[in-house]
Amino acid sequence: MAIAERSSGPVDVAAGIDIGGTNTALGFVDRNGCCLEETSIPTGTDRDPSELIRRVHQTITDLLGRNTRRVLVGIGIGAPNANFHKGTVESPPNLPWRGIVNLADHIRRFQDCPVAVTNDANAAAVGEMKFGAARGMRDFIVITLGTGLGSGLVANGELILGHDGFAGEIGHTVVDPNGRECGCGKRGCLETYASANGIRRTVAELLCERRADSALRSIAFRDLTARMISEAAHAGDPIALEAFERAGRALGMKLADAVAHTSPEAIILFGGLAAAGELIFEPAKRHMEANLLPVFRGKVKVLPSGLNGGSTAVLGAAALIWNELAKRG
Amino acid sequence: MAIAERSSGPVDVAAGIDIGGTNTALGFVDRNGCCLEETSIPTGTDRDPSELIRRVHQTITDLLGRNTRRVLVGIGIGAPNANFHKGTVESPPNLPWRGIVNLADHIRRFQDCPVAVTNDANAAAVGEMKFGAARGMRDFIVITLGTGLGSGLVANGELILGHDGFAGEIGHTVVDPNGRECGCGKRGCLETYASANGIRRTVAELLCERRADSALRSIAFRDLTARMISEAAHAGDPIALEAFERAGRALGMKLADAVAHTSPEAIILFGGLAAAGELIFEPAKRHMEANLLPVFRGKVKVLPSGLNGGSTAVLGAAALIWNELAKRG
Repeated sequence: MAIAERSSGPVDVAAGIDIGGTNTALGFVDRNGCCLEETSIPTGTDRDPSELIRRVHQTITDLLGRNTRRVLVGIGIGAPNANFHKGTVESPPNLPWRGIVNLADHIRRFQDCPVAVTNDANAAAVGEMKFGAARGMRDFIVITLGTGLGSGLVANGELILGHDGFAGEIGHTVVDPNGRECGCGKRGCLETYASANGIRRTVAELLCERRADSALRSIAFRDLTARMISEAAHAGDPIALEAFERAGRALGMKLADAVAHTSPEAIILFGGLAAAGELIFEPAKRHMEANLLPVFRGKVKVLPSGLNGGSTAVLGAAALIWNELAKRG
Repeated sequence: MAIAERSSGPVDVAAGIDIGGTNTALGFVDRNGCCLEETSIPTGTDRDPSELIRRVHQTITDLLGRNTRRVLVGIGIGAPNANFHKGTVESPPNLPWRGIVNLADHIRRFQDCPVAVTNDANAAAVGEMKFGAARGMRDFIVITLGTGLGSGLVANGELILGHDGFAGEIGHTVVDPNGRECGCGKRGCLETYASANGIRRTVAELLCERRADSALRSIAFRDLTARMISEAAHAGDPIALEAFERAGRALGMKLADAVAHTSPEAIILFGGLAAAGELIFEPAKRHMEANLLPVFRGKVKVLPSGLNGGSTAVLGAAALIWNELAKRG
């Protein structure tokens, strides 16, 4: 990964920043998608966002000072509820920042360089397009299966941001209008079925419906994690296996709807629940195919992330900058 | 509408062709979206497609011969199951042509000019963008409510064609996985609820469910048209009114899903059932709003078509050419 740095000339780097509820990851990524350096600082959510940006700037300056051959070409930021058009974050669900915070303006007070801000699923989509599983593709969808379900859609080689900058909310399309309560205030949203939290709820549902014995019967709902369900499924636990089947069914049904909208070449499943591998990929693919319009059957690849080496969130955020610079020629 | 022709210089025109099951409409449209001339010839489905194209070419030549100031800049074609990428029509549902017909190649045998081929909903979307209700918009969706339900999606100012050229099949997203049989082989597709044929089926459903008297009880299913249902609703018929409410509910629910994908500035309802006006617009808007993620509420306009003067299908097909020429600068 350090090959690019063997030459003695200057090396252009984009900073990728991923603002999380606890920590903010930060790294330098070269134009080939190699993460040359990575670190993390506390997000410090009890303080003003400008204070976080001041510490981010200080960290970038310190790291650049240690390797003067690196030239910063821009700063990409992934954050929840971020708006690419405006450079803002609006009432992020996992941060106590109130109202609208203009991260791009905060950064530009310290640093005169291109700044791009978007949500983590859109950053992942640009990361896959520049450096990952979607290289060379012009039409694809990235689904992030984390605590919730995020999505980033690319059509004609461009991220679909939508009129207001908030496009890509497949997690809040509806599986069942009378279904599970969702954090958004609606009922039956896809993310209440196909996400780390969704599969926990499905386990609870199955512990009620089924009589089968299961290791999951001895774990409290609050303590249950997607990893535990995945491990139980690998050990043959019937409740855990059926929970993945149901998560895959809900996901596959709504992926078929997504295909009917944009007819992508591939759908890339990303994030914690995707790490369960075939446990989630196999039923998701099967139910997607069963629900596709015949013209789309057998055409759409379902792929794991191709982002490796360094934090995928940092790679995705930095890719925003490399993508903008490539567009400017 | 003839203002553009008052000058004595040459007038660039694009030919717009709409291939239907019975007739093929054909017209010349100038760069301002004025339809300068329009005619119609029988599609002649008992003969080879190349024979239709020969007659289309002859008609274009005859019309141009009568007004030598008109200069043909390209030919746009709207046809069912058309593929923009390939210039082909694949097993169109209302034509007896078998396999894949390359319309663009057929045309180019007679005429050396740009040719663009796409389905009617995509042509309508480009027509609205160039000359209609979506002028100046970069993100919008056109829904055609005809016998079935077609859709054309535009994001970042570009038609979403998808990897295979068949994107925009919102009519085949699923309202109810156990619902009505659809012509595509699936069950519960949106077009089985929200289309001229869908609302007929809903009337049959309501004639079963409800006891209310209705003028529609004396019309056989086969004879029933969307216009009859619309007229009955305007006259206060309770079955007809509830049929529009149900069509609007299904449409609104799935429009909310579509907004979650691409976050459009507007959704334009087009075609026969849209002519029912508020009977369909009001419940569609209400149920869309009720199903939107809070961040999208109150933001998305639902508009009627802005294409006037001449056949909207001819305007849309010709707009494909004007749009391509504008992109080439």
